[in-house]
Amino acid sequence: MTEATSQLRVYDDTRAMFHLPAGVVYLDGNSLGALPLGVAGRVAQVITAEWGDELIRAWNTAGWYVQPRRVGDRIARLIGAEPGAVMMGDTLSLKVYQALAAALDMNRERKVILSDTGNFPTDLYMAEGLIATLGRGHQLRLAAPDQVEAALSDEVAVLYLTEVDYRSGRRHDMKALTAKAHALGIVTVWDLAHSAGALPVDLAGVGADFAAGCTYKYLNGGPGAPAFLYVAPRHADQARAALSGWMGHAKPFAFDLDYQPAGGVERMRVGTPPVLAMAALEASLDIWDRVDLGEVRARSLALGDLLIEQLARRCPSLQLVTPRPHEQRGSQVSFAFAGGYAAMQALIARGVIGDFRAPDIMRFGITPLYIGEAEVMRAAEIIEEVINGELWRRPEYQVVNAVT
Amino acid sequence: MTEATSQLRVYDDTRAMFHLPAGVVYLDGNSLGALPLGVAGRVAQVITAEWGDELIRAWNTAGWYVQPRRVGDRIARLIGAEPGAVMMGDTLSLKVYQALAAALDMNRERKVILSDTGNFPTDLYMAEGLIATLGRGHQLRLAAPDQVEAALSDEVAVLYLTEVDYRSGRRHDMKALTAKAHALGIVTVWDLAHSAGALPVDLAGVGADFAAGCTYKYLNGGPGAPAFLYVAPRHADQARAALSGWMGHAKPFAFDLDYQPAGGVERMRVGTPPVLAMAALEASLDIWDRVDLGEVRARSLALGDLLIEQLARRCPSLQLVTPRPHEQRGSQVSFAFAGGYAAMQALIARGVIGDFRAPDIMRFGITPLYIGEAEVMRAAEIIEEVINGELWRRPEYQVVNAVT
Repeated sequence: MTEATSQLRVYDDTRAMFHLPAGVVYLDGNSLGALPLGVAGRVAQVITAEWGDELIRAWNTAGWYVQPRRVGDRIARLIGAEPGAVMMGDTLSLKVYQALAAALDMNRERKVILSDTGNFPTDLYMAEGLIATLGRGHQLRLAAPDQVEAALSDEVAVLYLTEVDYRSGRRHDMKALTAKAHALGIVTVWDLAHSAGALPVDLAGVGADFAAGCTYKYLNGGPGAPAFLYVAPRHADQARAALSGWMGHAKPFAFDLDYQPAGGVERMRVGTPPVLAMAALEASLDIWDRVDLGEVRARSLALGDLLIEQLARRCPSLQLVTPRPHEQRGSQVSFAFAGGYAAMQALIARGVIGDFRAPDIMRFGITPLYIGEAEVMRAAEIIEEVINGELWRRPEYQVVNAVT
Repeated sequence: MTEATSQLRVYDDTRAMFHLPAGVVYLDGNSLGALPLGVAGRVAQVITAEWGDELIRAWNTAGWYVQPRRVGDRIARLIGAEPGAVMMGDTLSLKVYQALAAALDMNRERKVILSDTGNFPTDLYMAEGLIATLGRGHQLRLAAPDQVEAALSDEVAVLYLTEVDYRSGRRHDMKALTAKAHALGIVTVWDLAHSAGALPVDLAGVGADFAAGCTYKYLNGGPGAPAFLYVAPRHADQARAALSGWMGHAKPFAFDLDYQPAGGVERMRVGTPPVLAMAALEASLDIWDRVDLGEVRARSLALGDLLIEQLARRCPSLQLVTPRPHEQRGSQVSFAFAGGYAAMQALIARGVIGDFRAPDIMRFGITPLYIGEAEVMRAAEIIEEVINGELWRRPEYQVVNAVT
């Protein structure tokens, strides 16, 4: 799967590798990535030839047991992680929980978890749950995103951030914050939900301690695709596995009554891995293995600039909330607009699919594998039509869906 | 999906609904159930028509968001649960963890978790991890399976058992133990891994507090299929969600900074549900919806009796470890045999697939949807050949695989 094949040119070669419905400009790959054409065949093969024919034997013969590690190594390249430092499984909520629990355990004298108000809510909720379970007086302290650096102190046990803000697309300086945190004796946990596949990440280079991310956004692993967890190799043999399932045991098939953690990141496995979902992800990684992330990033920024410029000129009522400087943003462009919910419904009705985040944010994700200049220009035209033509005021767009 | 369709006769109608490789007698459906023929088409449809064409809209249009609850209601019928009391997601390790955390929280004055030495190791390991995280001096006390009832006392906070022992197939008396536990003020957590789809379970009838199970064994949901969690309706609005992810929030799409649990079992959702894996399970449930569990159980016991009788006569060196009385066993038959590992390899080489559990247990699962008298007789003949002919002594069967 990771043979030395020629590198794919982003969009020119990759666009044809995705299924995208006719008449749609899809700017929501930051929420659910589009379907790689290879997925259906790959999953069908795992279902029929592996599950169907091999049955239980497939844990060995089809490599199911080592799949979480094997896939983790393919993710590792995309986030600058050392080989063997990334484990797949479960969901991002659970992976940040595992990371935070292990990080707190490394800094037991301190009681403050520092995060920011731009962190994705599930990260904060999982921290609240962990604090309650621990019952040792930990405190979740939230700074404004631009006040995080100033809030670092030797009271802080763990710095717990999402690199790219899910609403604004604002990007933290992971390298500088990690360095300053370490100088103060703080352990770091980075959520890469809006980073992995969106921009080059260099976990080993910045000296990150723990990181986690999902694979259903920029990595196109499909709805509910498994999450990943990174543990720096210098910590992995000591990190406490709070969710100590049998697959993370040193000898899972000895069926001992007592838990003994496996060496390295293997201990962060919990239960039976989601084989079918991981097969879908593997088919998507067949594309990612052959893509240069530097090229993805360059095109993402250029396309983001194009959308920002077009909408600044066409729609002055949209207020840009994504920072313009390249180093300060991820791979989405967001605007505040009071009628944002209705406007997004009107756009979706016209085939421009972005999404809305309360209270008033319209998000447009830039996914250069299958979005290019033509799609961005088409989106800009339709956004202009909807916003300036006040089409969003129509009653049919005011109805709130169950899930947005 | 749950239309009023005619009931299926077990085996006569259901056997044809499974893919089973030629030349194989599959007696390991208690580890990984066989492939229902409907799965491949269903998953392909979700990939292509829902993910591919609907993209992010499918959370509403294809009902992805409500899938964990919808599927939970189909499982509910199989385990005697009230509608709305079962939630799908994650893995069994995580579901027993959630259940145990909530159960302990209901009995904060007591510190003993009572389990048995026949419980599946991951349940014990997850409890160890929770105890360490809690750090409040809880104790995991293990009784021998037949000493559990005697070990119940008013010291015990939670009775934490798997109904059917994964090695011996021995079945606990859930009703009697739950009643005695309740009389002593003990909260119960039942693991139904080897019960769901194997025999009728009556959670509401016995007054169970919490239960969890997996769906890749008797329920044929596929490798890594999602787990289920049952919370008795009388507890569900108070139960503490230790793994407090955003999907269990009262208003997940309000993106509040603070966690507020949803009402009922909905709070036991954690992160994004595994849509593709759950689609596979739904295709399997199309069969289960039309099957009478009483009929499954009757055939399971008859087939188990047949295997026990045949092997008692043919292979006296195999020592039966499964209780003979019907009410004391699940849907597997297990034998102790010193050369068990090698003997199972020899059987698998001859197309009889069971499995081995350390130190010396040979397991044969009885899954009446696709196993009948002919398969049991064929297995008995080959087992006789391997055991009595001492074929298992051949060197090629002594090599230990990575995973068994």
